[in-house]
Amino acid sequence: MDQSRAVSRISSSAIRELLDLVHRPGIISLAGGLPSPLHFPVEETRRVVDELLRDEPGALQYSSTEGDPALREWIAARHGVGVEQVLVTHGSQQALDLVARATLEIGDPVVLADPGYVGAIQALALSGGCLVGLPTDGEGLCVEVLEERLGEGLRPSLVYVVPNFHNPTGATLSTSRARRLAELADRYGFLIVEDDPYGEIRFSGSAPPPLATLSDRVVSIGTISKVLFPGLRVGWVVAPRVLAPALVLVKQAVDLHTSTLAQGIAFRLLTRPGFLTDHVMVLRAHYQSQARVLSGALAAEFGSDLAIVHPEGGMFLWAEVRRIGVDTEALLREAIDHGVAYVPGSAFAVTMPQGASLRLSYATATPEDLAEGAHRLAGVLLGR
Amino acid sequence: MDQSRAVSRISSSAIRELLDLVHRPGIISLAGGLPSPLHFPVEETRRVVDELLRDEPGALQYSSTEGDPALREWIAARHGVGVEQVLVTHGSQQALDLVARATLEIGDPVVLADPGYVGAIQALALSGGCLVGLPTDGEGLCVEVLEERLGEGLRPSLVYVVPNFHNPTGATLSTSRARRLAELADRYGFLIVEDDPYGEIRFSGSAPPPLATLSDRVVSIGTISKVLFPGLRVGWVVAPRVLAPALVLVKQAVDLHTSTLAQGIAFRLLTRPGFLTDHVMVLRAHYQSQARVLSGALAAEFGSDLAIVHPEGGMFLWAEVRRIGVDTEALLREAIDHGVAYVPGSAFAVTMPQGASLRLSYATATPEDLAEGAHRLAGVLLGR
Repeated sequence: MDQSRAVSRISSSAIRELLDLVHRPGIISLAGGLPSPLHFPVEETRRVVDELLRDEPGALQYSSTEGDPALREWIAARHGVGVEQVLVTHGSQQALDLVARATLEIGDPVVLADPGYVGAIQALALSGGCLVGLPTDGEGLCVEVLEERLGEGLRPSLVYVVPNFHNPTGATLSTSRARRLAELADRYGFLIVEDDPYGEIRFSGSAPPPLATLSDRVVSIGTISKVLFPGLRVGWVVAPRVLAPALVLVKQAVDLHTSTLAQGIAFRLLTRPGFLTDHVMVLRAHYQSQARVLSGALAAEFGSDLAIVHPEGGMFLWAEVRRIGVDTEALLREAIDHGVAYVPGSAFAVTMPQGASLRLSYATATPEDLAEGAHRLAGVLLGR
Repeated sequence: MDQSRAVSRISSSAIRELLDLVHRPGIISLAGGLPSPLHFPVEETRRVVDELLRDEPGALQYSSTEGDPALREWIAARHGVGVEQVLVTHGSQQALDLVARATLEIGDPVVLADPGYVGAIQALALSGGCLVGLPTDGEGLCVEVLEERLGEGLRPSLVYVVPNFHNPTGATLSTSRARRLAELADRYGFLIVEDDPYGEIRFSGSAPPPLATLSDRVVSIGTISKVLFPGLRVGWVVAPRVLAPALVLVKQAVDLHTSTLAQGIAFRLLTRPGFLTDHVMVLRAHYQSQARVLSGALAAEFGSDLAIVHPEGGMFLWAEVRRIGVDTEALLREAIDHGVAYVPGSAFAVTMPQGASLRLSYATATPEDLAEGAHRLAGVLLGR
């Protein structure tokens, strides 16, 4: 009953340990990764389930590994690809796991931004990827640094990018970097995995062109979790034609297919006349307003002592305390004792230290709590 | 974009290729692996979704990797274990994949019955298990042969068994073999994976004691797919305390958690007052009646030319044509041309040839079609 080396490559995430603490009464949690439930389409969901169970005899039966044909068509149209390139998954986390499993050998170099998304770090490490964290700035992953490293001989199998509002740094990949990255993929033969859960929730600035429009060596993964709700676990992967059949084989071996009922619900919500467009506009307005409240409160509390990446979308704000010797991980316990929680930058570190950084979610707290949370945070981080 | 060696270890299953053919009009399919939709609790499902969406604000939100606390309690009580040993999964296929991934190293010997369940063959091979197929007879996996092989030096990491109505052979593991297998696990230090999707659908004979009651080295995997419906994709794994945390880590990396909504639906159906017991009795009566019709028709059509394993439960009947030179795989195309489909034994072969064998499902065809299917089958397989 020994555990495999695969398990030894991953560890329980810092976020996970933290989440156990922040449910205490009186704590304002800016640590969460949950989308706001305020606008979950509960009534619409009830209605589509009624319709599904009335109209579709197959809704409770086994279904195909590739996914619901109608949902696949919708995804294919959205991405401008052939339906045979689309596989529906149990969330975008599974999409990434399938890609890693279908393409990585143990020890293969895998490039991602450092700090990086914890779920990606876990999935890529589980399949044996040797993670190479590269710096990221206001224009996203530093593709120039990647180019240097490629010149020095680095040969990654896969480069993982979150083009819009990267979690945790909030950065959007610039168009010039997106183009350069696509060129490098073609020249050096690596696969780009483009993970875009938040792209729809953009409320300012502009998105880079989808990487899949710039190169044939791109896998795009997506999810309904941020535009509808995450509890269904419905995501997808859009893969180059040469890779798609392998993903289907792996999916079949790991869980046969994605929940038939969940796919039916997702499809009916996504295609409900007039629903999605309006719903996304409501979400954008909500998150924009929340982001402004938190950004404003932080600016007022910290002044120049906090470098803030002002979000152009999504659910998170990344910040760095401009005081020598501040260690956000070490201060977290004290912060919780003072009634506020955040995720320290170190939780997202691939290899580089992130001691003065922190990620704050503005998704679920009330505006009052966002302001009060910023106040408590300044008290702890600036040692007032 | 090369595919990994992991993918090269699995291949598209014969069942899968076949299923594309049998939807032609006029074909009586005894090839399917689907449970009967006749008794899917559609109306009850509609009602519990209404209740869930009305009463549980968290039903659409992210939830814990381990699974819905109430559902875990129900599973723990059913298996007589601690709740910390229970992990809810996207079906029992995923349960097996998680166990394989958490325990196997590439090349580890893994023992299973030959012929074996195709889903298990795929999942175990994907994680690098080196499959060792052992013979099976009317009392299930030939544990005596396993004991011999252990004596000769075989050291499996894992032994996979389906104790009740093994798919495809229909055999139930005898109590004496179950006890012996548990003793061998303790003596040689391997893990037993006990996969029991059909156990509730027993209509004659008696079940062996659960292996988990005989040894601490047992992982039990279960599913709602056969007692409720498979389209939800809800299953579980019950693991020894030393193994459970590793399974949770792997689950988190591969898809974060099982669908919150699906788990809520499953829990409410499983615990709906008076529902489950009555429902399972209806299913048993249905499958028993179906099994009798098919067994009877085959006996009448084939006489002594077909050796039938008369099912004591589940959805499948395993048979062997007693004619020299019959090759069920080669004859499948002709059978389909004659309007009947089955799964040839070779689809389940680990290493031993299964040329004269076939698996027939009596789950979904009408009684008239079962009889007519048996007639057409005799025409093709006996060359009439």
